[in-house]
Amino acid sequence: MLTNRREVQIEWGDCDPFGIVFFPRYFEYFDACTNALFHRALGIQKAEMLRHYRIAGIPLVQASCNFFVPSSFGDVVHVDSRVTAWGNSSFTVQHQLFRGETLAVEGIEKRVWTVRALEDPSKVKGQAIPREVIEKLS
Amino acid sequence: MLTNRREVQIEWGDCDPFGIVFFPRYFEYFDACTNALFHRALGIQKAEMLRHYRIAGIPLVQASCNFFVPSSFGDVVHVDSRVTAWGNSSFTVQHQLFRGETLAVEGIEKRVWTVRALEDPSKVKGQAIPREVIEKLS
Amino acid sequence: MLTNRREVQIEWGDCDPFGIVFFPRYFEYFDACTNALFHRALGIQKAEMLRHYRIAGIPLVQASCNFFVPSSFGDVVHVDSRVTAWGNSSFTVQHQLFRGETLAVEGIEKRVWTVRALEDPSKVKGQAIPREVIEKLS
Amino acid sequence: MLTNRREVQIEWGDCDPFGIVFFPRYFEYFDACTNALFHRALGIQKAEMLRHYRIAGIPLVQASCNFFVPSSFGDVVHVDSRVTAWGNSSFTVQHQLFRGETLAVEGIEKRVWTVRALEDPSKVKGQAIPREVIEKLS
Repeated sequence: MLTNRREVQIEWGDCDPFGIVFFPRYFEYFDACTNALFHRALGIQKAEMLRHYRIAGIPLVQASCNFFVPSSFGDVVHVDSRVTAWGNSSFTVQHQLFRGETLAVEGIEKRVWTVRALEDPSKVKGQAIPREVIEKLS
Repeated sequence: MLTNRREVQIEWGDCDPFGIVFFPRYFEYFDACTNALFHRALGIQKAEMLRHYRIAGIPLVQASCNFFVPSSFGDVVHVDSRVTAWGNSSFTVQHQLFRGETLAVEGIEKRVWTVRALEDPSKVKGQAIPREVIEKLS
Repeated sequence: MLTNRREVQIEWGDCDPFGIVFFPRYFEYFDACTNALFHRALGIQKAEMLRHYRIAGIPLVQASCNFFVPSSFGDVVHVDSRVTAWGNSSFTVQHQLFRGETLAVEGIEKRVWTVRALEDPSKVKGQAIPREVIEKLS
Repeated sequence: MLTNRREVQIEWGDCDPFGIVFFPRYFEYFDACTNALFHRALGIQKAEMLRHYRIAGIPLVQASCNFFVPSSFGDVVHVDSRVTAWGNSSFTVQHQLFRGETLAVEGIEKRVWTVRALEDPSKVKGQAIPREVIEKLS
């Protein structure tokens, strides 16, 4: 299973009056980490990936996070990201954010490989994930 | 169970290149909805609530969302928020975001009533939630 | 000159570890206020405005802010927004954010009425602003 | 004049339905670049800098940006940041964001070296910037 590690610098503007990361920012970090994982696996950036596979995006149907240890501005953490499950058109990405050796946050995203509906381009629908994509991420 | 309804205007800047709400924004909406729920129940704003109950905050230990229907800029949606479970120092908030009659997103936050540790103010710990707070939100 | 007033609730997640609004959030408020101003003047939401006038957007070429007085979570402020100058394809929007009677922040946006280039849809260019738009905002 | 160069990866979540960076994100990038500049000059992170110099922060009194060329998700840009003027308690930071060789965005921040007022810790005021700080950034 391909795992991508990404360093994240916690910024002042990511933190709240409590002095710790405002929790929606973790979901932003993880979204960027999913893109980085696909970039590494497929060798192309997200913009190119959308064009190449003629998809509209990989939107989420579910997201969840467990927050074990807070982080604050100035901290440099790293996130390990991998696809842990494949459905026909959906897949699950796991993100583990570490402060040093400590697992600080764990996030799960369930996403769908999505195309615009031919009959109505304002609508989207799931499509079977190409075998090649699954192989490159496995 | 006290339920607070809040209108949310989806802004251009909340949406991604797909044209729909970038999903971490839902967690931002819900955080604001939790504050609005407590404001309504206790009659004081969050800043005053922190002072009054001598807490450092109500940080999250867990957050999750199910995304059923996307929203886009210009949409006006509403969110119904309520506390659905009370532990000793933790509690669970449920948020249901509706587009018209349609449940579009459902979010769950698990939060902790938190004070700074006397022995080390840089550390925080959970504390029993005051009975009065529980009663006012029930 | 049409002026639109909009109430803004300062949220916990808009504030930084200093306890005050993280300054880029003001630019987000103002972007939403510009959309609200056009919505009020034209009677249609931004999504509909883009379709109706066949434009790609009204992106900025310049933005500036003066910060006189900080605001913090729980504050309810209001913003007065108006177009103060019209060029051929560009226009200037002024935003004044008040805490009570006090002018707290003043922002200026210079924007362009923008269409996709016919010869290359990945490129955009300015276009003359329709007379009707100018009249409705004056 | 010390110049710090910082690479910025433009993320999907930084972009709007137009497909380009939502302009307030540039101010977020620049805020992080100012912190990186001070980190490099002083050898300590912002959290440590606040403690070491006993300041509350370096909030802005003015910010402005000129947007010459848009950027989009997947772009990797770099920002050159430097302090271009020193007052007694205020200073000016210039940020130039380049796409390759092209100057895409230029931002100016005017900030104040700020302490909590002794007579009322809820208030802040400017204080003379230490000579050592000025020297290390020059």
